[in-house]
Amino acid sequence: MIITFLSDFGLEDEWIAVCKGVIKGIAPAAEVIDISHQIESFNLKKGALVLATALPYMPQGIHLAVVDPGVGTKRKGLIIQVERGDYLVGPDNGLLIPAAGRLGGIQKAFHITEKKYMLKPVSLTFQARDIFAPVAAYLARGLEPQKFGPEIAEKDLTLSPWNEPEVFTQKIVGEVIDIDKFGTVRSNISPDHLKRVNISLGDSAKLILKNSELSLLFLETFGRVKPGEPLFLRDSSGYLCVAVNQGSAEEEFDIGVGDRLTILK
Amino acid sequence: MIITFLSDFGLEDEWIAVCKGVIKGIAPAAEVIDISHQIESFNLKKGALVLATALPYMPQGIHLAVVDPGVGTKRKGLIIQVERGDYLVGPDNGLLIPAAGRLGGIQKAFHITEKKYMLKPVSLTFQARDIFAPVAAYLARGLEPQKFGPEIAEKDLTLSPWNEPEVFTQKIVGEVIDIDKFGTVRSNISPDHLKRVNISLGDSAKLILKNSELSLLFLETFGRVKPGEPLFLRDSSGYLCVAVNQGSAEEEFDIGVGDRLTILK
Amino acid sequence: MIITFLSDFGLEDEWIAVCKGVIKGIAPAAEVIDISHQIESFNLKKGALVLATALPYMPQGIHLAVVDPGVGTKRKGLIIQVERGDYLVGPDNGLLIPAAGRLGGIQKAFHITEKKYMLKPVSLTFQARDIFAPVAAYLARGLEPQKFGPEIAEKDLTLSPWNEPEVFTQKIVGEVIDIDKFGTVRSNISPDHLKRVNISLGDSAKLILKNSELSLLFLETFGRVKPGEPLFLRDSSGYLCVAVNQGSAEEEFDIGVGDRLTILK
Repeated sequence: MIITFLSDFGLEDEWIAVCKGVIKGIAPAAEVIDISHQIESFNLKKGALVLATALPYMPQGIHLAVVDPGVGTKRKGLIIQVERGDYLVGPDNGLLIPAAGRLGGIQKAFHITEKKYMLKPVSLTFQARDIFAPVAAYLARGLEPQKFGPEIAEKDLTLSPWNEPEVFTQKIVGEVIDIDKFGTVRSNISPDHLKRVNISLGDSAKLILKNSELSLLFLETFGRVKPGEPLFLRDSSGYLCVAVNQGSAEEEFDIGVGDRLTILK
Repeated sequence: MIITFLSDFGLEDEWIAVCKGVIKGIAPAAEVIDISHQIESFNLKKGALVLATALPYMPQGIHLAVVDPGVGTKRKGLIIQVERGDYLVGPDNGLLIPAAGRLGGIQKAFHITEKKYMLKPVSLTFQARDIFAPVAAYLARGLEPQKFGPEIAEKDLTLSPWNEPEVFTQKIVGEVIDIDKFGTVRSNISPDHLKRVNISLGDSAKLILKNSELSLLFLETFGRVKPGEPLFLRDSSGYLCVAVNQGSAEEEFDIGVGDRLTILK
Repeated sequence: MIITFLSDFGLEDEWIAVCKGVIKGIAPAAEVIDISHQIESFNLKKGALVLATALPYMPQGIHLAVVDPGVGTKRKGLIIQVERGDYLVGPDNGLLIPAAGRLGGIQKAFHITEKKYMLKPVSLTFQARDIFAPVAAYLARGLEPQKFGPEIAEKDLTLSPWNEPEVFTQKIVGEVIDIDKFGTVRSNISPDHLKRVNISLGDSAKLILKNSELSLLFLETFGRVKPGEPLFLRDSSGYLCVAVNQGSAEEEFDIGVGDRLTILK
C-alpha cells in the first residue's frame, strides 16, 4: 500500500524521518512517497494546491498531509474517504478539501478521536508523529476508518483555503491562490468555469487583475506569444494562470496571493 | 531490512545517490530511509542530535551516519551494536554516541579494518561510498559485525560531541547543543536530570544563560505563556529547551551553541 | 526493477511527485531512487556530470533524466540502450551522453514517437510527466525499446554538453565543466588523457587556466599540499580537478564553467 506524504517540515531536521519511522513501525510493508516537505511554513493555500495537483497522478492509497498552523489548538484531525477509494489524513483546516474534490469528491469523513491508535503521550506540538502518521499507517494495514472516531458531516468540515470563483453569465470572479517560482499567477478558476462563460482556447477575454485591465488571449502555451507578452493559460496544475512569456506576471501586474482576478467574456 | 541514512552531503550533488547505488548493488532488498542530508557541513552536534532524536522512532535496522570533518585522517570507522539490536555505522568522532544511548546503550563496538568489504581503491575523501555504505549493506545482508574488524572497548571510543550535564544537589550545569530554526535553544539536559533535582512540570526554576539570569516556568508547551514570554520545556527532541512563545530565545538571550546553561532549583 | 530519476525540478512543487505517481501507476513494482532534483535550472553540464558520476554506482536499471531547456520545441525524446544493459530515458540534448559513455557506451538509441505509451493530451511544458516517466515505467515492466519508436543512429544524436579534450603529444586542451560547492574546478579531462601525455601521480605539470600559468603537482588528495596551496587531482567524479586545499580554486584563479584549461607535460 502506498502512503504519500506532504508537509511544511523542511528537510534539515528530524521531523520527516520520525514520521516515516512511526509509519514503518506500524506498517512495515507500506511504501512512503514524498510529495513535498518544502511547502512554505503554514502556507495552507500552497499545500492544498500541491496536494490537489499531485494526487490525481498517484495510485490509490493513503495520503498524509500536514500543514497545520493550528497544531495544539482544538482543531480536529480528519480522515476523508473519497470517491476514488483513497483516504486523506490530516488536520481539519481545509488543506485536504481541494485534493478530495480532484479525487471524485468526499464520500465520508471521520473525526479522529480514538486514542488507541495514537502514540502516547500525544504531544501538543507534533501531532503528525503522534496522531496522523500512526492513523495513516493503520489505514494502510487495512483498518476501517470508522475505527478511529465518529463520522463527521461534510458541511461541518473546514472549507478549502480558497473560495470557489463566482460565475455569472459573462463574468467570473476568482482569486489568486499561488505564485509559482517563475512569477506565474495561479488562480482558483478552472477551464470548466471558462466553458460556462463560453471562452475557448484561442479566444480573447478581458481580465481585471487588481489595478490592471487587460485584453488577453487564452492560449495553450507560453510560446504562443512573444517574449515579454502576457497571456492566460491552463498550467500543469490544472488551474488557470496569468503568465508572461519569459517574464514574471507577478512583477508585471504587481499582484499577490489573495488578490481578486476577474475574467469578462 | 531497513537502512537509515544521515549525512551532511546536501542534495545538489551526486554523493547521496552514489552511496545508495552502492547499497542497492550489495543488498538489493534493503530499504533505504533518509533521515536528513541537510545537516550543516561538519556540524557534529547537529548531526548527533538529529540522529538521536530520529532513531528511537525507527524500526530496528542498520543506521548509516556520516558527518565527518576528519575524513582522510586516521580517525577510525565504527560499527556500534546497541542493546535494542540495531547496528550504527559511521566515523569514530562521537556522532553515533547519543543515538546509541537512546537505543539502550552500546553493547559492543567494532573497528572497521577488513578491506574485503570495502570498495577499491578506498578514496581518502569519500569513505561514505567506499567504506561505510558497503559495510551497512553487508550488515543488512546478515553478515556479523565481527567480520569487519576487531572489537574495540567502549572506553576507547571518541566521546559524544557534547558532555553530559553535571548534576548537583540543587543545580544542573549543562550546555547549548543546538538552536533550531525558530531560535529555540536546545540543551544537553534531559527531563531525567530535572527529576534528580526535583523540578516537575509547572515548577519555577532559576536559569542562568550566559549573561542572563531568569526565573522561568517548566511547562508543557509554548502556548502556556503569553506571546513574547520565555519558558523552558521538553521539546520533541526529548531534550530541555529554552524558548520564547512566538519569538526567538537565541536572539532574546544572545546565546549560541556551546554556551553554558545552568538550572537552579 | 530500479528506476533512477534526475531533474532540475526542485523539491518545492508537485512535479517530482507527479512523475513518481505516473511511474507507480504503470509499474507498481518499480523502485524509484532519486539522484538529484536540485540541478540548477537548465544547467545541462551539471546534470550530465552528476548523472555520469552517479550511474556507474547504480545497479542495472532504467535511468530517467530531465534537464530540458528545449521542452516544447522539436527536440526529440530518446531511449539509449548502453553496453551494460541499462536504458537511459530523456531529451535528445546531450544530457544522457556522458553517462552512456561511463556505462560502456551506446549500443542502440531510439526516438520516442509511439503515442500509445504517452499520457494524453501530451502537454507542451511537462513532457517528463507525459512522455519520459511513462516510457521509463513501461521499460521497467519489460517492454522492448523498439516498441516506442524507430531506431536512431548514434551519429544523429545531440552531442555531450562538453567536448572531449584535445590531446596532443605533450599537451591536453580541455575545458571547465563544473565548479563544485567548495570552489573546486572540474574539467572534462580524465586520468586516461593524462596517461596519454605521460603524467602520473606525483608528477608536476604546467597548467594554463584562463589568465594564470601555474606549475602544479598531480596528487591523490587535498591534504598533500599546505592549506591555501593549489594542486590538481582526480576527484570523486572521476574527472580531473584543480583545487586549493581549504580554499577555492574558482576564486583564486577567477575561472568559470566553459573556460579553457590546458595541461602541458
